[in-house]
Amino acid sequence: MDRKWHFLGLGFVLGMTALCASFVGGMYFQHKDAKRRLQEIIQKDPYAYYVGPKIYEVFCFFENQANADHRMSQIMKYGFPGLDDLRLYSDFVLSYDRRNRVAHWVCEHLQLDNIHSNRGGRGRNPYQPDMSVPSNFRSELTDYRRSGFDRGHLAAAGNHHLQQNHCQDTFFLTNIAPQIGQGFNRGAWNNLERYVRNLVQRFGSVYVCTGPLYKPKQRSGGKLAVEYEMIGQNMVAVPTHFFKVIMVESTLQLGKPYMEGYVLPNAAIPDNLPLRSFLCDIREIEHYAGLKFFDGLRRSAIFGSNYPSESQVFREFG
Amino acid sequence: MDRKWHFLGLGFVLGMTALCASFVGGMYFQHKDAKRRLQEIIQKDPYAYYVGPKIYEVFCFFENQANADHRMSQIMKYGFPGLDDLRLYSDFVLSYDRRNRVAHWVCEHLQLDNIHSNRGGRGRNPYQPDMSVPSNFRSELTDYRRSGFDRGHLAAAGNHHLQQNHCQDTFFLTNIAPQIGQGFNRGAWNNLERYVRNLVQRFGSVYVCTGPLYKPKQRSGGKLAVEYEMIGQNMVAVPTHFFKVIMVESTLQLGKPYMEGYVLPNAAIPDNLPLRSFLCDIREIEHYAGLKFFDGLRRSAIFGSNYPSESQVFREFG
Repeated sequence: MDRKWHFLGLGFVLGMTALCASFVGGMYFQHKDAKRRLQEIIQKDPYAYYVGPKIYEVFCFFENQANADHRMSQIMKYGFPGLDDLRLYSDFVLSYDRRNRVAHWVCEHLQLDNIHSNRGGRGRNPYQPDMSVPSNFRSELTDYRRSGFDRGHLAAAGNHHLQQNHCQDTFFLTNIAPQIGQGFNRGAWNNLERYVRNLVQRFGSVYVCTGPLYKPKQRSGGKLAVEYEMIGQNMVAVPTHFFKVIMVESTLQLGKPYMEGYVLPNAAIPDNLPLRSFLCDIREIEHYAGLKFFDGLRRSAIFGSNYPSESQVFREFG
Repeated sequence: MDRKWHFLGLGFVLGMTALCASFVGGMYFQHKDAKRRLQEIIQKDPYAYYVGPKIYEVFCFFENQANADHRMSQIMKYGFPGLDDLRLYSDFVLSYDRRNRVAHWVCEHLQLDNIHSNRGGRGRNPYQPDMSVPSNFRSELTDYRRSGFDRGHLAAAGNHHLQQNHCQDTFFLTNIAPQIGQGFNRGAWNNLERYVRNLVQRFGSVYVCTGPLYKPKQRSGGKLAVEYEMIGQNMVAVPTHFFKVIMVESTLQLGKPYMEGYVLPNAAIPDNLPLRSFLCDIREIEHYAGLKFFDGLRRSAIFGSNYPSESQVFREFG
């Protein structure tokens, strides 16, 4: 009789344990399932990616680690400069300015693989409007025709040679802005793009953010005013300047990143001007662009140059 | 002996059922718990709210209904005009233009309760900078001082009388733009605001979206150019025009909503011009603003006037 109760007690405990284990198992299954589906969404939608960390907190019951290693998370590792109309392409992320029909910014993450020109190749990629932009906000090929402006790349075609579709994507008009051809797109701007690729060759991992500026000018009477042209039927803005903010990840284990910003006027720039004369304080670029670059980094951790000297970076292109 | 096996079988089935029930119970608990926490996030973060429907799909295992009835979901019921720097205030939602230091748009949902002026009251609310905007993008009181421009409300103070803090929030400088005082802020613009409140009084539920425009002008030579002033140390843009897009929900069960848009130049407007002379095609406003209004509605469902006639809406203010 006594033994019988013992068995019953043991059976009860075992049963309850099994029930509890099953309950937790159910929670875990639901958790895993939801998380997998969440990750699928986050890989495709930049806004879902942006709120991702907050959403992941919802799942903190079991684990808190978000193991994101898709392409977008690599490119946007240091944060979004802005959040207007985010668009994900095969090898860069872009924010589109629907009012000006030109991007706000384009972010790239460049490694040696991306720029090796023997693969893929620029070939004959056609410029094309991005049909995913609503027609009311889309720039078309006709807008640039006979405008006197080049179709200038923001994310350079030469930075995306890993796969054919990577290079193709840079020819979407969302990644294009009206640029002065002689002396700018085919001059100083091109030199800046080559300088960036040179940094990749030397340091391996470079983040670049490129975009237009609409800088105000002093008018007679001392007042400041913004003034820029618009071309074509769809009224595509002609930026007054273009910026590039460059961040070089250190090759050392605990090395600090190195960051610099350039602002070039959208005008014919004399050949003999060195690139470094266009260096610009990053806070100033942020003020005119209304963006915040590499916000994920504490600023105090940057600018601490872990390179021999700034001038060495410039030796070849200065 | 035979009976013993029967009992064992029954016990096994009961045990497995209990285990399964417990498993599902665990899933359900995790689901409920995650959902509750998700809803807390969504009520505070406009971006989380925007991707909300996608995230909810993750939880579709048990139910698909997102029972959102917090204030933001009421105001943004018909979609976001744009997604740049979204900001949630007590009774309106705003998108801030960090480049121009003036909002892109402000959305309100007005009902009789909001405009009854006996409660709360405008009192003496102070204009104040919104310290949640990073200093590099913030407009300050000093920017407006001696600029010659009024601090014009986008979401009108008179629309938010339900609670004291509702009205107070409209005095944040994020909701303010430089407006010509005489003949505009104190003239036609004020009339437009009164007209909106009149619609609320007559039809009960009105959605309003207000914002600035920077319209291009024809220059000598036929070229189009955008040109606008910037005031103060922080360079606050002076919009060339302001728009209001108004949507009146039908009081009938299946009635169609009614929508109209106004564009007023930021200039002294003669008193004798009727408001309806500033009526503007909504697609045109969208083109200049780079926004999309009440996108959640199929356009075909609107403009079907369920009012006796358009002119009646204008009888009092025309």
